[in-house]
Amino acid sequence: MSLLDLFLEAGNLKRLPRTGWLLRGVSNPESIADHSYRVALITLFLADELKANGVEIDVERALKIALLHDLAEARVTDIPLTAQYYLDKGKAEKKAVMELFIKTSTPREYFRLWREYEEGLSLEGRLVKFADRLEMLIQALEYERAGFSNLGEFWKAVDSLRKSEFYGHFREIVEELAEGRKEER
Amino acid sequence: MSLLDLFLEAGNLKRLPRTGWLLRGVSNPESIADHSYRVALITLFLADELKANGVEIDVERALKIALLHDLAEARVTDIPLTAQYYLDKGKAEKKAVMELFIKTSTPREYFRLWREYEEGLSLEGRLVKFADRLEMLIQALEYERAGFSNLGEFWKAVDSLRKSEFYGHFREIVEELAEGRKEER
Amino acid sequence: MSLLDLFLEAGNLKRLPRTGWLLRGVSNPESIADHSYRVALITLFLADELKANGVEIDVERALKIALLHDLAEARVTDIPLTAQYYLDKGKAEKKAVMELFIKTSTPREYFRLWREYEEGLSLEGRLVKFADRLEMLIQALEYERAGFSNLGEFWKAVDSLRKSEFYGHFREIVEELAEGRKEER
Amino acid sequence: MSLLDLFLEAGNLKRLPRTGWLLRGVSNPESIADHSYRVALITLFLADELKANGVEIDVERALKIALLHDLAEARVTDIPLTAQYYLDKGKAEKKAVMELFIKTSTPREYFRLWREYEEGLSLEGRLVKFADRLEMLIQALEYERAGFSNLGEFWKAVDSLRKSEFYGHFREIVEELAEGRKEER
Amino acid sequence: MSLLDLFLEAGNLKRLPRTGWLLRGVSNPESIADHSYRVALITLFLADELKANGVEIDVERALKIALLHDLAEARVTDIPLTAQYYLDKGKAEKKAVMELFIKTSTPREYFRLWREYEEGLSLEGRLVKFADRLEMLIQALEYERAGFSNLGEFWKAVDSLRKSEFYGHFREIVEELAEGRKEER
Amino acid sequence: MSLLDLFLEAGNLKRLPRTGWLLRGVSNPESIADHSYRVALITLFLADELKANGVEIDVERALKIALLHDLAEARVTDIPLTAQYYLDKGKAEKKAVMELFIKTSTPREYFRLWREYEEGLSLEGRLVKFADRLEMLIQALEYERAGFSNLGEFWKAVDSLRKSEFYGHFREIVEELAEGRKEER
Repeated sequence: MSLLDLFLEAGNLKRLPRTGWLLRGVSNPESIADHSYRVALITLFLADELKANGVEIDVERALKIALLHDLAEARVTDIPLTAQYYLDKGKAEKKAVMELFIKTSTPREYFRLWREYEEGLSLEGRLVKFADRLEMLIQALEYERAGFSNLGEFWKAVDSLRKSEFYGHFREIVEELAEGRKEER
Repeated sequence: MSLLDLFLEAGNLKRLPRTGWLLRGVSNPESIADHSYRVALITLFLADELKANGVEIDVERALKIALLHDLAEARVTDIPLTAQYYLDKGKAEKKAVMELFIKTSTPREYFRLWREYEEGLSLEGRLVKFADRLEMLIQALEYERAGFSNLGEFWKAVDSLRKSEFYGHFREIVEELAEGRKEER
Repeated sequence: MSLLDLFLEAGNLKRLPRTGWLLRGVSNPESIADHSYRVALITLFLADELKANGVEIDVERALKIALLHDLAEARVTDIPLTAQYYLDKGKAEKKAVMELFIKTSTPREYFRLWREYEEGLSLEGRLVKFADRLEMLIQALEYERAGFSNLGEFWKAVDSLRKSEFYGHFREIVEELAEGRKEER
Repeated sequence: MSLLDLFLEAGNLKRLPRTGWLLRGVSNPESIADHSYRVALITLFLADELKANGVEIDVERALKIALLHDLAEARVTDIPLTAQYYLDKGKAEKKAVMELFIKTSTPREYFRLWREYEEGLSLEGRLVKFADRLEMLIQALEYERAGFSNLGEFWKAVDSLRKSEFYGHFREIVEELAEGRKEER
Repeated sequence: MSLLDLFLEAGNLKRLPRTGWLLRGVSNPESIADHSYRVALITLFLADELKANGVEIDVERALKIALLHDLAEARVTDIPLTAQYYLDKGKAEKKAVMELFIKTSTPREYFRLWREYEEGLSLEGRLVKFADRLEMLIQALEYERAGFSNLGEFWKAVDSLRKSEFYGHFREIVEELAEGRKEER
Repeated sequence: MSLLDLFLEAGNLKRLPRTGWLLRGVSNPESIADHSYRVALITLFLADELKANGVEIDVERALKIALLHDLAEARVTDIPLTAQYYLDKGKAEKKAVMELFIKTSTPREYFRLWREYEEGLSLEGRLVKFADRLEMLIQALEYERAGFSNLGEFWKAVDSLRKSEFYGHFREIVEELAEGRKEER
């Protein structure tokens, strides 16, 4: 077993900055692990909320997906949009994640979870995608409140939250966030 | 509902450094969120492994505990050992976490999870404690490999891993880690 | 004698960030030592000014208080307001500072100085409190001029400066500062 | 003309870290621009030296290649080795650089220069490759002297310097460097 | 030959911050090498453009000047304006650069190049001065876009660009830049 | 009165790094204010100790000197040794400090204090020089303990401590420090 190797590689997520912020001049931006942590935390509360509202959702599954969804970046790094135009990020992450999971005893199951996120194959996977976008916008708001000001582009993602199947459930959060941004401006 | 406030407060975990490293001269140490992320990731793989080995464990529960175990630090910050001698950290975190969970619809359940970690009340809570220590040591190894050298004290925690009820299951990981450290020296 | 130990512990003040700024998104904020230095410098000029204006003040005493007023944070760290709600910071610092001073030959005298600040027991102690707040506001102004923008809360402290017994003497400084802030907005 | 856009994009090279160091725990590593600067400076002195020794070399050409050789990374970022296994970095940089040069009046000429480096098509291109490796090793030495210690892998590049057509001319530099490293160990 | 020493010293340019930004509160500002890189890159494109427009200019010469123009700062550091009032920066850099070039085989030629910049003795030297100012303003714009706001003073340099002999050729770049700044405000 | 301006300028000491460490690869070194703080703190304890041992020393004077001794660097910055060879740092700081003190009501007295340090004119001035060197070495020890390793040169200063008139009084501190360093190696 070489789970230790996997844990060591995951350490890269602490060291690697989220490049989207970096390129816009945020000087010491959050790490990928910073982001992934709050995505998982958000997923936890949203999934529980959905369940309490009668939605059939597998919370364990959702949490696992959240924790694994950016793991490939431990090898591939956080390829920004400017680079994705030239590189097949999805394909690269797919390969990377497969090879990372080989270090576990059930690589196929983990890979299945990862695909659920990447390809939106399950409710849980799509919830993590929702949480991922939400997290990014909350961070954008925090940077803007702190004084950083080059982040307008990110806010387009509000639309995708509004069009999401989860919007009905979390309308308040999304609109409170959008409102918070307006006050900031 | 004010889950957004809770998510915003959790952002503090990205901004706050882990003070243990800071005090020993690691210049830009990991954030609390960085640490929490890998604790949760480790918990995921260890819990699945235990389950595969026939141990009765609630993986969802374990993951939730991992994600919540340091949440109080969003308010209380990472009080280092030098300060714990003068401050009742446990009591403070207890109060803080209770007030944080009030923002959710089921504060009591989350508080129960938090206590399972803090007081070692459940197998899941104790597994997260194991993962928490393991994570710290993996990070210590990474800092030592990078060249930082004031971290000997942390390695006492290997003993507590060896005495843990989970040691039998994860002996290889623990010893591989201890071995990796020896090579470093 | 173990004054060297005391000096080494004081080094923590260089490594520890002022958490108030950190939590509001100032990415690489000043250290506690940074702050303490300017508090002492301000104390120097204000105390001399008071003396020149006929106020009976012990400048040496004031300077010592300024240099010692945050020393406890070398062990206790800079506990932010969000945490003080849950922790008895004052009590912790009191204990910590007592134990730190044991390394000197006259612990009681130093502890007396520290209490003069903490409890406002002497003119000198209160002057350092005034300098401490002034310093914080000057730093807030500097961060706001640099572009950070989440610092409005700090400016409530202007009121306490205006109500201070020293306001009559240093009205110009306080109002110039408040004016500088208005221009910034 | 939109040379200004090109200059603004080149600013990314200042903001982006060299990921090789980052992944090995160098906390605030050099930027891509930092690296490119010294590559160009080294190229300058080596090219002049070669010319003085009777080698027919176009110094202007060499300097241009040095300044342009990493420009694609302004869009593609510094893809580390761990990622190159999954991504076709060369192809991506080729496309990126072509699109960047469109902003100039002679895109083809600049692209030709870039290819001379990438594909080793000219003496000048190969000299910059030599300078690129030399620069990396000088930086590795500097990090090791500063105390960072996870950089052994980089030193394999000494061999490629020794096998280079330029080794005869710059043997002293290469061996002095290799010697300096030995002393460090 | 001790070119390696020269290359090692040039490494200081990566470690040393540009103090102008630092003093105005930009927390992790660019290094001197970061700046020098883009000055050289700008010089490359402007020189080629001039040549294409029929101006007689030695591009190689211009590139060398750009790469050498701040080399003295590897010893002297980036003395800010506040200090230049008390220190003869020009004289210091002249001496420093002379001693640095002694490590090369043709110190006089390199020194001549440096003087062309410093004293504006040649078209190439003056072009690098133009590029140096342009680079600083582009960086100022980038910092302002990112949210930093204490940089008004720097923009006086636009006038010197407008009065330059090169303004006719690069009017569009200069005005686009000035325009970009207005939008920022 | 423009004491506020003086306090604002002193803020530069927080922003400016100590260049000696920076040039040797310490990535985020202490600020000048960080250093000045501990110099003043050390002065406090040493001066009190001397007085307790019957030495006639003006502690207030010593503390003022400690707080003012690096104030000129708010304008002149921390000119490293490599630059002092080319620049008359002493003369520059003298002028700068004179102009800074003009903002106070008794510029001559403060200037007198500054000269006592700079020229060793008084026991108090020489004590601060002793404290200044001691502080630097304590910091060097802390950086070496943390893993930085390029700092051997600094330790020559131990000799000057041993030759000092204060060595008899503080032999234990000096030797404990020297001893601590040996253990580190």
